[in-house]
Amino acid sequence: MSTILLMSTMDLRDDLSFGSHEVRTWLDAGDPAEVEYIVVWGAFALDYDTLPKLKAIFSLGAGVDHLGDLSGVPDGVAVVRFVDPLLTEEMTSYVILNVLRFHREDPWYRDRQAAGEWEQIIPPAAGDVRIGVAGAGELGSAAAKALFDLGYDVAVWSRSRRSSEGMQSFIGRGALPDFLGRTKILVNLLPLTDETRGIWCAETFTMLEDGAYVINAGRGASLVEADLLACLESGRVAGAALDVFEQEPLPEGHAFWTHPRVFVTPHAASLSNPVSIGDHVMRNIVRIERGAGPIGLVDRERGY
Amino acid sequence: MSTILLMSTMDLRDDLSFGSHEVRTWLDAGDPAEVEYIVVWGAFALDYDTLPKLKAIFSLGAGVDHLGDLSGVPDGVAVVRFVDPLLTEEMTSYVILNVLRFHREDPWYRDRQAAGEWEQIIPPAAGDVRIGVAGAGELGSAAAKALFDLGYDVAVWSRSRRSSEGMQSFIGRGALPDFLGRTKILVNLLPLTDETRGIWCAETFTMLEDGAYVINAGRGASLVEADLLACLESGRVAGAALDVFEQEPLPEGHAFWTHPRVFVTPHAASLSNPVSIGDHVMRNIVRIERGAGPIGLVDRERGY
Repeated sequence: MSTILLMSTMDLRDDLSFGSHEVRTWLDAGDPAEVEYIVVWGAFALDYDTLPKLKAIFSLGAGVDHLGDLSGVPDGVAVVRFVDPLLTEEMTSYVILNVLRFHREDPWYRDRQAAGEWEQIIPPAAGDVRIGVAGAGELGSAAAKALFDLGYDVAVWSRSRRSSEGMQSFIGRGALPDFLGRTKILVNLLPLTDETRGIWCAETFTMLEDGAYVINAGRGASLVEADLLACLESGRVAGAALDVFEQEPLPEGHAFWTHPRVFVTPHAASLSNPVSIGDHVMRNIVRIERGAGPIGLVDRERGY
Repeated sequence: MSTILLMSTMDLRDDLSFGSHEVRTWLDAGDPAEVEYIVVWGAFALDYDTLPKLKAIFSLGAGVDHLGDLSGVPDGVAVVRFVDPLLTEEMTSYVILNVLRFHREDPWYRDRQAAGEWEQIIPPAAGDVRIGVAGAGELGSAAAKALFDLGYDVAVWSRSRRSSEGMQSFIGRGALPDFLGRTKILVNLLPLTDETRGIWCAETFTMLEDGAYVINAGRGASLVEADLLACLESGRVAGAALDVFEQEPLPEGHAFWTHPRVFVTPHAASLSNPVSIGDHVMRNIVRIERGAGPIGLVDRERGY
């Protein structure tokens, strides 16, 4: 039995189950010298000198950028992303829904229905629709594979990882123009790092096929919202499905709320499931106690 | 080189390519005694005594019910459905789009966006969503398999065919209550026969899980529209995606046009691709000329 400190602005003790481990909250932390594990959502700052037994910090999300600066975390303390098959499955279904929405011209059909018009358009075959998935982590790889299985022409862009199974790989910043030049539907699932902040902007949108679509389920700060709005205005980008934003919740009066070609969801593409989180943390505690590395270990140098 | 008679209300000669075969149209048929193949969309009546060389009648669609009464077609003349991987792929993508639309509560999120509200709901895991696919032909089997691959709990109901790969099979009319009792999202891909006309009605909708969804991409006449509207009103059915209707085009002023929980498409789930049709007909002519059975041969006894 280990001692877990649960740090979040809401008291999540009733939602998250960590079996027989002792769970303390932020406001009732007791003696920090006894804390072995921290489970956290949101930026935090700790005096690690008071936490001599700390072994790991678990993020409640798939990313860790929301945790803020991790440079002070001692080397012996593992930082662990939330990795979960259900989280991955949910993200994949979000991506497929929005790819199909654009590929099958569903917004156009919704407009035709509203106008009472019976009119058909033949969509291109999936094999003629070029999808570009940016990001080759758990989420990006799973989404790319599922789209590939549905018959789409899928390419993956990442910093270093090669994709498999008949999908084209584009590696590194230098390959970005070629990747975007063949992309009709861009799916962003990149982690937020210094390199990916603001990566989707006027310059890169212009590299896309004309009338392209943008799906962002990675991080809001990777996309320059004003540039996307301008490209939607010019027709360079034909539509966007956005789950994440520069500021969340998306502010009242933001142009995205009422834009007819923007499909907003409230950071809900893939919601951490309380049961899965408990399982993930407990399984990883078993691994760490046995001396094995946790699943979802973050490379702090790389930032994800 | 064979002589093909192309029968449709529109002149499709510029759209459909049949290679070096001689193609005649309805209005310029020449000597019927020379016609070996007929390609047709819509009901028709022929004096088969004047067509001694006729070998096959090709439907331009996946179904043949639109051809009307086929009882007069001589035994030696094959009736052939349109079977095409692209047609199947398109139907599968229509089904997935609409399953995801309902599973992920997309209509609810569209309403939230329109209201400027940032609110999340956690959808059930795909494995907890019970999909019932009615029809185990090319289209039904492909859709069921794709949904199964996405993690859904899929069951298939058909007259006689058992489905594979971990999906539950329900066979025959007697199994319909059990099939519907475990179905949250019903997908109709049945052919239209005497047995399936009006099969989706008040009686069968009431067998579904409460708050179920109905997706009809089979035939409009299999669904009793007034009953569906009543079940949408009572909440028994929570939403419907309809591609086919009792009367097509869907008449002006029909309640479906403006119903907030009905998603109308104009018989466009899977549009026959002109290139594919030409290939399908030409390949089957080669098979028939060689004495092989055509792909898509209709069992006239069974009706599909």
